[in-house]
Amino acid sequence: MKSYFRKEIDAIAGYTAGEQPKIANLIKLNTNENPYPPSPAVEAALREFDIARLRRYPDPFADELRDIFAADCNVKRENVIVGNGSDDLLTMCFRGFTSPEHPVAVFDPSYSLYPVLAEMQVAPVIKIALEGKDFTYPDDISCQTEKANLLVITRPNAPTGTVCPKSLVRKYCENFDGMVLIDEAYGDFADDNCMDLALEYDNVIVMRTFSKSCSMAGVRLGYAVSNSTVIEGLMKLKDSYNIDMLSQIVGKANYLDKEYRSKCISAIRRDRDQMREKLLKLGFEVPKSQSNFLFAAPPDGDGEAAFRYLRENAVLVRYFKGDVTGKYIRITIGTPDENRRVLELLNARYA
Amino acid sequence: MKSYFRKEIDAIAGYTAGEQPKIANLIKLNTNENPYPPSPAVEAALREFDIARLRRYPDPFADELRDIFAADCNVKRENVIVGNGSDDLLTMCFRGFTSPEHPVAVFDPSYSLYPVLAEMQVAPVIKIALEGKDFTYPDDISCQTEKANLLVITRPNAPTGTVCPKSLVRKYCENFDGMVLIDEAYGDFADDNCMDLALEYDNVIVMRTFSKSCSMAGVRLGYAVSNSTVIEGLMKLKDSYNIDMLSQIVGKANYLDKEYRSKCISAIRRDRDQMREKLLKLGFEVPKSQSNFLFAAPPDGDGEAAFRYLRENAVLVRYFKGDVTGKYIRITIGTPDENRRVLELLNARYA
Repeated sequence: MKSYFRKEIDAIAGYTAGEQPKIANLIKLNTNENPYPPSPAVEAALREFDIARLRRYPDPFADELRDIFAADCNVKRENVIVGNGSDDLLTMCFRGFTSPEHPVAVFDPSYSLYPVLAEMQVAPVIKIALEGKDFTYPDDISCQTEKANLLVITRPNAPTGTVCPKSLVRKYCENFDGMVLIDEAYGDFADDNCMDLALEYDNVIVMRTFSKSCSMAGVRLGYAVSNSTVIEGLMKLKDSYNIDMLSQIVGKANYLDKEYRSKCISAIRRDRDQMREKLLKLGFEVPKSQSNFLFAAPPDGDGEAAFRYLRENAVLVRYFKGDVTGKYIRITIGTPDENRRVLELLNARYA
Repeated sequence: MKSYFRKEIDAIAGYTAGEQPKIANLIKLNTNENPYPPSPAVEAALREFDIARLRRYPDPFADELRDIFAADCNVKRENVIVGNGSDDLLTMCFRGFTSPEHPVAVFDPSYSLYPVLAEMQVAPVIKIALEGKDFTYPDDISCQTEKANLLVITRPNAPTGTVCPKSLVRKYCENFDGMVLIDEAYGDFADDNCMDLALEYDNVIVMRTFSKSCSMAGVRLGYAVSNSTVIEGLMKLKDSYNIDMLSQIVGKANYLDKEYRSKCISAIRRDRDQMREKLLKLGFEVPKSQSNFLFAAPPDGDGEAAFRYLRENAVLVRYFKGDVTGKYIRITIGTPDENRRVLELLNARYA
């Protein structure tokens, strides 16, 4: 059968997201979801909702959400765009800022979706290696990024959980002649964030998601903050009604319950640090994480074997092939019971 | 401030969707929404839903929905892809099949989003004029479409409401060396449809939406049917989790209540035909519509004046500038009360 796709689309493999298996009693720690449910306020919002409203199109700009995020980030509505998950916003950014003549620079290892989005744009990908066991960010990347039009900094980084020092982020922003996209998907689990850079520099976008700290991966919400010129440009690239009405409603109810969210985040941060200590004692290599997961290399450096072993014991974590990443598994922080079970299993094998 | 967008993005204006004004007591007949609420089954599905599930990612492929649509269309799951509204699917198609070297052919007038999606791809747009007061489709378009890689047939067409005869659609598919996208957003209001062509030809995609006949514009759901090779290609272009969990759940509950939907569709078809008769008697030019709206030119041929007059009287319809379209207004079929009010107002001015 003849293909009418552009040849570049035929050539790419597409992105493989973490598994969403439908297996009972599986401890699922592979896609960095939050172990706690969203705020009880979501239940009330759904109960009150008049389903007759669904016949109408939703607010195309999700302005109620924009105002809430703007107030939280100390910016204006015009500085915020809402996406159908931050995947949607990443797609807009790659469509807007990359092309065969506009390469993108990413760190390696980092979120494996970025190179796939670049492939769709037939945009060259410049990979900047993180250094050593702590995945240190190079002090000077100006030679490598000279030709790039987009630089993506994932902060905290995935899958490593580590953080590029804010002073270095500033330096990157100042020395780079292109857009800097700071992906703060895991920002709420970190000690600091870069939201203030979104308006401090002309070339910065900061992005957040509801999928991690907000316990709403099922809802698909994310937002990006930048100067109004950049936001206007991204608006042209979004689908007219990209956020459905129910997502706007449950997103709002959940986000406004900050006290509940803070409690969940604190518990995850505490359990993450405790689990890291225990893994270090078992001889694992575990860079300090500021995220809701740990990137952990077993003593034998065989990440794939650890992945398989846990999977055989009904615990699903994430494994990424590769010379560096292949030594590790990425473990999402779960409930205390789930974390205990993981440690029990790893103890049985590696102690 | 320097722009880092690709220059083509800076050059485009973006799409302007129909207004979603927040004005009380406005009769809103401008975006072809369904005047009836979705099925009561949606209420039950929401009440039963356990919000704790929202912490998880949704099914990335929306397989339950795919299976339901596949059964309905007499195809297999592998022949179906679900979109965040058909806008999402249109974006995938334009990304997959158009580029500066891959022009798109569209009919004129038709859905004004298509040229905007082409602009984002920097793809040339070939406009094929519909002819005369009935907006007739030319018998032979092969010269005009020779260089195109994508041909879009909106059936029924928007904003005219008219239908390209199925025998002519077949002829177009057979003679065109590229993908034919048959956009059946309004297909449920027509006397026939082209779903059977999706697998009969190798180069056909048929697309449907929940925004019109399913009374779910607020939910953002659409689906496309084609051979599995085309569906696989489109899957590479979609965001990993493009359909949120609540949309999958309420969409399913609503779609399965076919009896309720049929009743709504029948009422709209009946009211549409009655309203057309009354407008014809008033001296309006109204091509026969197989959709849920009427494209109606007042006796003085001044669409804009009619639009303004209705708007001053709290009725919002749609007006499209242009030599041909500027003579018309597009009126969505509302509830019997809403339709009566429109006719009352038009009678007062044009009788």
